[in-house]
Amino acid sequence: MRGSFGQHFKLTIFGESHGSAIGMVIDGIPAGTPIDEETIARDMARRAPGSDPTATSRREPDKVKIVSGLFEGCATGTPLCGLIENMNTHSGDYAQLRAKMRPGHADYAGQIKYDGFNDPRGGGHFSGRITAPLVFAGSIARQLLAAKGIAIGAHIASICDVSDDVLDPVHISANTLSQFQNNRFPLLDPAKEAPMREAVAKAKAEFDSVGGVIECAAVGVPAGIGSPFFGSVESVASQLLFSIPAVKAVEFGDGMAISSMRASRANDAMRYEEGCVRCLTNHNGGVTGGITNGMPIVLRAAIKPTPSIARKQQTVDLSTGENTTLSITGRHDPCIVPRAAVVIESALAIALCELMMDDAATKQAFPIGEGVRPQG
Amino acid sequence: MRGSFGQHFKLTIFGESHGSAIGMVIDGIPAGTPIDEETIARDMARRAPGSDPTATSRREPDKVKIVSGLFEGCATGTPLCGLIENMNTHSGDYAQLRAKMRPGHADYAGQIKYDGFNDPRGGGHFSGRITAPLVFAGSIARQLLAAKGIAIGAHIASICDVSDDVLDPVHISANTLSQFQNNRFPLLDPAKEAPMREAVAKAKAEFDSVGGVIECAAVGVPAGIGSPFFGSVESVASQLLFSIPAVKAVEFGDGMAISSMRASRANDAMRYEEGCVRCLTNHNGGVTGGITNGMPIVLRAAIKPTPSIARKQQTVDLSTGENTTLSITGRHDPCIVPRAAVVIESALAIALCELMMDDAATKQAFPIGEGVRPQG
Amino acid sequence: MRGSFGQHFKLTIFGESHGSAIGMVIDGIPAGTPIDEETIARDMARRAPGSDPTATSRREPDKVKIVSGLFEGCATGTPLCGLIENMNTHSGDYAQLRAKMRPGHADYAGQIKYDGFNDPRGGGHFSGRITAPLVFAGSIARQLLAAKGIAIGAHIASICDVSDDVLDPVHISANTLSQFQNNRFPLLDPAKEAPMREAVAKAKAEFDSVGGVIECAAVGVPAGIGSPFFGSVESVASQLLFSIPAVKAVEFGDGMAISSMRASRANDAMRYEEGCVRCLTNHNGGVTGGITNGMPIVLRAAIKPTPSIARKQQTVDLSTGENTTLSITGRHDPCIVPRAAVVIESALAIALCELMMDDAATKQAFPIGEGVRPQG
Amino acid sequence: MRGSFGQHFKLTIFGESHGSAIGMVIDGIPAGTPIDEETIARDMARRAPGSDPTATSRREPDKVKIVSGLFEGCATGTPLCGLIENMNTHSGDYAQLRAKMRPGHADYAGQIKYDGFNDPRGGGHFSGRITAPLVFAGSIARQLLAAKGIAIGAHIASICDVSDDVLDPVHISANTLSQFQNNRFPLLDPAKEAPMREAVAKAKAEFDSVGGVIECAAVGVPAGIGSPFFGSVESVASQLLFSIPAVKAVEFGDGMAISSMRASRANDAMRYEEGCVRCLTNHNGGVTGGITNGMPIVLRAAIKPTPSIARKQQTVDLSTGENTTLSITGRHDPCIVPRAAVVIESALAIALCELMMDDAATKQAFPIGEGVRPQG
Repeated sequence: MRGSFGQHFKLTIFGESHGSAIGMVIDGIPAGTPIDEETIARDMARRAPGSDPTATSRREPDKVKIVSGLFEGCATGTPLCGLIENMNTHSGDYAQLRAKMRPGHADYAGQIKYDGFNDPRGGGHFSGRITAPLVFAGSIARQLLAAKGIAIGAHIASICDVSDDVLDPVHISANTLSQFQNNRFPLLDPAKEAPMREAVAKAKAEFDSVGGVIECAAVGVPAGIGSPFFGSVESVASQLLFSIPAVKAVEFGDGMAISSMRASRANDAMRYEEGCVRCLTNHNGGVTGGITNGMPIVLRAAIKPTPSIARKQQTVDLSTGENTTLSITGRHDPCIVPRAAVVIESALAIALCELMMDDAATKQAFPIGEGVRPQG
Repeated sequence: MRGSFGQHFKLTIFGESHGSAIGMVIDGIPAGTPIDEETIARDMARRAPGSDPTATSRREPDKVKIVSGLFEGCATGTPLCGLIENMNTHSGDYAQLRAKMRPGHADYAGQIKYDGFNDPRGGGHFSGRITAPLVFAGSIARQLLAAKGIAIGAHIASICDVSDDVLDPVHISANTLSQFQNNRFPLLDPAKEAPMREAVAKAKAEFDSVGGVIECAAVGVPAGIGSPFFGSVESVASQLLFSIPAVKAVEFGDGMAISSMRASRANDAMRYEEGCVRCLTNHNGGVTGGITNGMPIVLRAAIKPTPSIARKQQTVDLSTGENTTLSITGRHDPCIVPRAAVVIESALAIALCELMMDDAATKQAFPIGEGVRPQG
Repeated sequence: MRGSFGQHFKLTIFGESHGSAIGMVIDGIPAGTPIDEETIARDMARRAPGSDPTATSRREPDKVKIVSGLFEGCATGTPLCGLIENMNTHSGDYAQLRAKMRPGHADYAGQIKYDGFNDPRGGGHFSGRITAPLVFAGSIARQLLAAKGIAIGAHIASICDVSDDVLDPVHISANTLSQFQNNRFPLLDPAKEAPMREAVAKAKAEFDSVGGVIECAAVGVPAGIGSPFFGSVESVASQLLFSIPAVKAVEFGDGMAISSMRASRANDAMRYEEGCVRCLTNHNGGVTGGITNGMPIVLRAAIKPTPSIARKQQTVDLSTGENTTLSITGRHDPCIVPRAAVVIESALAIALCELMMDDAATKQAFPIGEGVRPQG
Repeated sequence: MRGSFGQHFKLTIFGESHGSAIGMVIDGIPAGTPIDEETIARDMARRAPGSDPTATSRREPDKVKIVSGLFEGCATGTPLCGLIENMNTHSGDYAQLRAKMRPGHADYAGQIKYDGFNDPRGGGHFSGRITAPLVFAGSIARQLLAAKGIAIGAHIASICDVSDDVLDPVHISANTLSQFQNNRFPLLDPAKEAPMREAVAKAKAEFDSVGGVIECAAVGVPAGIGSPFFGSVESVASQLLFSIPAVKAVEFGDGMAISSMRASRANDAMRYEEGCVRCLTNHNGGVTGGITNGMPIVLRAAIKPTPSIARKQQTVDLSTGENTTLSITGRHDPCIVPRAAVVIESALAIALCELMMDDAATKQAFPIGEGVRPQG
């Protein structure tokens, strides 16, 4: 917990927004895994802020430097450490950051947690920038999964009050998902891009920001991955998803909506289809009893609006012990939702690697012979 | 993961629905903690099926027997193991359970996971019955928290399409929460009980079942608990909440709804109130940056409708490799939502104990002297 | 840590000497593993006190009752909980146990640790009796290992100043090791039994006790198991070995003696032997760089003399705050070394299961194709 | 496990001998801990190879660069990553390293473990150089411990067949231990330096190397730290000690020797001394029942002779599948024992931080009021 995740595909992240570098260590990449640094660069670019008007104008190339665990293009099997230099850090005067608490941010909670010793510059370790190491790790996880025919992709399900179409949870194709990866504004219905951008622009013009929802899916995951209870697919994925700073809700399958259905609708009827067990519907999002059932895994994560806004807000000044107001200036994203798509994908990819390794640990170390086996 | 949770308040659960006993081990109860077995019994009774018409007619007294870790009424500090005997087990013929997969259940996923060796009787380890040890552990966690002035309670936010009022996230009182604990059908608006029961009765009469939503809150939690990223309050709580078999969505604060707000509304403005930092609103549900901010913690969990229904469903027969139909007979809950309230509370209580212990581990082992400290 | 070990073959132990039961939970037994309860009983009997004059006259049948995780003779794959009832508990007056600290025992350290709330009867959770669940778990681990052709056995290397022969670390046979398992006084040189027993009898007659050394080996372990650093074979095995109450030293290979060798002797020269890489010597005990090299794993553990002796000892009385003397009466082992052999074997077996599962987690979840591979 | 240790003071190490950098991440340093980089540099220098004739002539300044977790001289409380650049890397042709297995090294075990993908240059991740991050982490751990009055120090107990005096385990002073820290050849009896150096020089002249024993102690550790079983002081410390590449044996207190004592001698009699409970002897090395008893913690670790020697050795060539011989040229330590002292100290320091944090997690999160408490 805290800065580390996992028992098999072990990930440790570190760094502050305005420190010299941020990065991560993965312990558990199988020796011999080819690490494609171009794929990593492409995934990093999807998260990086750039010239898109929905994002901050800061330029962070987010170039990854692997300092260990890689030899001649392949993972060595020992811990892989990757660094991302912080280049564009205008720290300025941060005394105010210690004093005036930005609403919606971790400022106040963080100062109590760390007794006022946390790095306040640019949000420090609470910065959304620390999701860059998560994307780095996720990119490696996805390369592992891809070799087993597993594809992961996410689109913008909504920004503010503008919604994209929803994925058909029964018939998601790997092709659809991989197209999302080539698009910095991934949508099922391209016609929604204009109104979404308009909503962002309008908020920005009013010194405000907007949130949205990311819908993410994985196809090709075999049935039987995950465990009941604390190692359920939902438990492990949600631990990672909720570690992403702006996420406030996570749904699997029909999520909240399933609570108002009757079982006769919510239960996914099963049938044989070309010798394979399939479900006719996928209200459970590919997971029953915490374990994959072979259907696409489908989840949604709610992203709250970026808390940094220029509009005047009421807050407290810890240095004076008095109430005050605050207008946050500087370069901030009026909407981080498009950049969040690859972060959500990364969280799911890391969770699946961890769970597939957990499955292999018991099943493959001591493979059994015969038994009362299902015909799945 | 799998059957174990936590690094400080370490919980291991075990058992199958029709085995000789189910139970749990907690390693990490502070030595000297008085364990009130009557409180445990009261919490267990809230989860236990009984005579309520929304629940199964099975009688499971769920009497807990503590076999270790308790001496003269207090925790010894060494692992506490508690057992709950399985008394009312009509296993009957379970060959059909191996063959005909119940839609919405873990049957198929579980057989693949465990190569067909899992105990199929009564759902085995996938049974909702295995939430009893969770409630047991949660009851002990709540006794610890109560000694620090922390109260946790949950009400039925909705059953099917009938909704209760919502908690005012800013002004939740410990009293409101503790009243929920004395009620097997906890509601803010008692007038909703009748239409909710009606919805259940109607579904039952139609050989169907319904789900719902539980809203849960904790008050009295100090600011500064939790960590950024993988040890965030949301990450740790959601790992536990999604381990509850029927949960398909988890929201903190305004959850999914926050995604369509602008920051000017979603950000919780702060002010001094009698020398304490408070928020004017609580859209973030008491957690910012993964860390508690001193406001009530508020979350909601979606409970899917009980998958066991008498209505005929399409499914597969693994023994024949053919499609078939299935009508599930026996005693099943047409709605588990009222029984789920205490399970959700337990998950939150366990998460908070874990996180408060994590906080103490670093802060209290090597207490620091002076520093640039906030005045919170 | 504390009462739990492992991330793959996860073991949790619990219980106090005079509580109602002691036991353990293993989470990670592969589904379908046949659990032979007779083998468990045989292993438990090797640890149990009996009629042997070196041991206490208490009778503890140590019959194991499996309450979960077992169905129709095979592991279900979900957590397996086993209980051992405490039958023969003469607690008597334990106020003195709280007051007069037995030298060499955990009494004083334990009371400080647990603020005086630990169960003092019969040593409570510190009792050597709590190694029974370790043997239970070890017996299951050995059944897994045996199916892969791995044999583990231990003999009494010494009792007091009487030494057995040492294993030839290069040519240990599975047969030799399995013969140890059929003997409650396992020795390479049977002629040493008489002088060893004499040393025990002499100490007993003088109201004293003796310790000894257990030498343990495993054959058939493939090369490549374990990791550099914290997951080394020595690190993982020693964590388990030192958890056994009386163990004060652990050596691998030549252990302490290797420190006075030169490398020209200590280095194990390698050669091809029937196409396999073998070492001509085995000073490293089958482990180099923390990883198995295919040679037998050989270790020794020092067992201190049982601290409970009838001879008068100087100690403190915490109830009066004064110095006092103590003569420990009751049934105590004058020598636990013969009973410890199976406990040491169990620790090694559990470590190997954990490490083999760790190996499978990365290698088997994402099997690689070709590469610059050694011809080993 | 593998590259990570701990649940409270979480350490992750990474790097290969000839990669761009090695390093570590610590997650769990209390916010506000002043990090004295000069003290770190001093500790690093004790491990670094230098001009001492017992060590390699390679120059590795081992300058540490902290890239996260530090702000204005104090720990932020978030993960601290430190890097050590690899400067002096003569990789040359490493094809031979893949082929000819160096006896006593991890070459063969490592190639099997990592399917031949590990970095072979300079030992890669198996290099003793990877103990530098351990010393880095240990230096921070010691700064934490020092603030609580805990001192740790180690001396050379023996090199080859030349022994230093042994520490008086009852009367070790913090002063003695801190003097060890100021000496790159720490001894109790300075007259032993000459014969020790002579033994090293003689071995070197004969193209050979020697090992030795490090004795390490900690004073000031309060009673009550550690847990029975898997979290015992010995279990946790030995996991770290055996992670050090050359360590083949670990003893606590009298270690192997206690096995031939009778309890009347091995038991440490207790008495009140100026109101405190003390032991008259310290055969248990300050730990009983896995828990500290307030006496000095004393341990010894056996260091095997450096396996890299110029003398011709028999080995295998994996590229040809034939037997061959090998003479290892290059700059190698004829004796690493003096450099190992600070590494052993570091392992103990990290273990104690972890265990003290574990203790605080339960005791301080929910402090209890009254109880049957000992008067210790």
